[in-house]
Amino acid sequence: MLRMIQRIAILGTGLLGTSVGLALRAAAFPGSIIGWNRGLEGAQTALEMGAIDSIAANPLDAARSSDITLISVPIYATLDLMAQLAPVLTPHQLVTDVGSTKAQIVAQAARYYNTPQRPAFLPGHPMAGKERGGAELADANLFRNAVWLFTDDPAWQRSPRGAELVTAWRKLVVSMGSRTTDIDPARHDEMVAWVSHLPQFTATALGALLQEEIGDAPELKDVGGRALREMTRLGASPFSMWRDIALTNTEPIERALHALEQRLALIRENLRTPVLRDEFDQANQFRRE
Amino acid sequence: MLRMIQRIAILGTGLLGTSVGLALRAAAFPGSIIGWNRGLEGAQTALEMGAIDSIAANPLDAARSSDITLISVPIYATLDLMAQLAPVLTPHQLVTDVGSTKAQIVAQAARYYNTPQRPAFLPGHPMAGKERGGAELADANLFRNAVWLFTDDPAWQRSPRGAELVTAWRKLVVSMGSRTTDIDPARHDEMVAWVSHLPQFTATALGALLQEEIGDAPELKDVGGRALREMTRLGASPFSMWRDIALTNTEPIERALHALEQRLALIRENLRTPVLRDEFDQANQFRRE
Repeated sequence: MLRMIQRIAILGTGLLGTSVGLALRAAAFPGSIIGWNRGLEGAQTALEMGAIDSIAANPLDAARSSDITLISVPIYATLDLMAQLAPVLTPHQLVTDVGSTKAQIVAQAARYYNTPQRPAFLPGHPMAGKERGGAELADANLFRNAVWLFTDDPAWQRSPRGAELVTAWRKLVVSMGSRTTDIDPARHDEMVAWVSHLPQFTATALGALLQEEIGDAPELKDVGGRALREMTRLGASPFSMWRDIALTNTEPIERALHALEQRLALIRENLRTPVLRDEFDQANQFRRE
Repeated sequence: MLRMIQRIAILGTGLLGTSVGLALRAAAFPGSIIGWNRGLEGAQTALEMGAIDSIAANPLDAARSSDITLISVPIYATLDLMAQLAPVLTPHQLVTDVGSTKAQIVAQAARYYNTPQRPAFLPGHPMAGKERGGAELADANLFRNAVWLFTDDPAWQRSPRGAELVTAWRKLVVSMGSRTTDIDPARHDEMVAWVSHLPQFTATALGALLQEEIGDAPELKDVGGRALREMTRLGASPFSMWRDIALTNTEPIERALHALEQRLALIRENLRTPVLRDEFDQANQFRRE
């Protein structure tokens, strides 16, 4: 069946898009891969790395000539591209994405895709990345041992070819080394607020605070050593990506941040009481399982 | 001069003490190393690993027969040992430590050490460790590229031999691969509250919170991936060590925790405003320098 996929388009050849191209090549995907990127430089890097075979002049051309189109840009840009692509594609074509929040993307898919007369859309989210973006950091092994989430809707009706392409894309994801899991989109957004967005905003808060406190004494960063480096590494993440996440998953993130504020206050108020032991026990247990 | 040090005692052969023994051997320290540990098992592991040459029946015997005694146990136990050792040692002997907070240890040193008639004491703090303790995790390279802080007091008066041993221990620390830095004890405790204790208690709070939220769904930890693992790794740290740190550095830690609570609230209240960009910029900058 994979041989029936003659061409894949990657719209957005940043870290994720370029890594997908490299991973598809490493998995011996036999078809062609066409890329497009808002900045030409990123597309050229992806081409030089062998992640794509050619560069498209615009995203619509790339998608029109492909069986599967992967959108790998920030969330609002993904929503825009979804709306632009739907009218120019056929029920024999699939669009999928890598967006970090799914509620709005699923709503957009219900609006423009997934009837027998429309192109197919499969909402996806690989739990993989690096704290810095860009094609030049792409890695064929980025998705190895990662979880690739899908928030498909069983009510959606696809053409037989659309359904076939969904199955094919899931197989390609497995061929890149990921484990696929299906989850409800609202549950997805709630869950990633805890396991992904909370750790990110915590690292951002810690990094911003420490920049203010000891930013003028960089030698103190060495004193902090590995623990400090690790707890602030995610602080290097680009705002451009996280802005869209904050805007499309605001309430779950607010709840998670508020819960952490309360937990820090609990520890602060109990530095001299046995409650501190309970907190260490709980945190120890989280690491044990 | 190092050849004049015939014996070093290591009191407490946990992760740090045993690593010091291994690092001294790796640096070709020619003298003997005697070890003592509250639990015999830890001492036997250190002996088997070659970190110590013999096991002492009690800490006083070990120190009495040594030129330099390194105390590497939690802070309150360190304060106890300091008081016990002072009366049985001579001005020709040096005691040093690895305690994570220094105000109380420096006060104890001023009480019992560092006159020409008393033994010498040098307060030290290697900025190195692992999230789990124990001799079996010891590593000859633990102190490589780490900063080893000293909070010596220029007013202290040592015997010529005591001063010589202080110089010798500093050289041994450098031979283990560390960079030594001198700092005022109050400034030390304030600084480590930011660069070491705050990251630790943040990881503990995050781990404890997530244990409560998703502890019954361990598959979600995989979903979080590297970022989640990294941000909660320190959560595995033992309470036994951190209890003493919380008790001996309470106010600076309270200030740092309170500042982080406020920073998280700032981010929470600004998920949809340009302030979020400023926070990312600040955190990015912390990682750049």
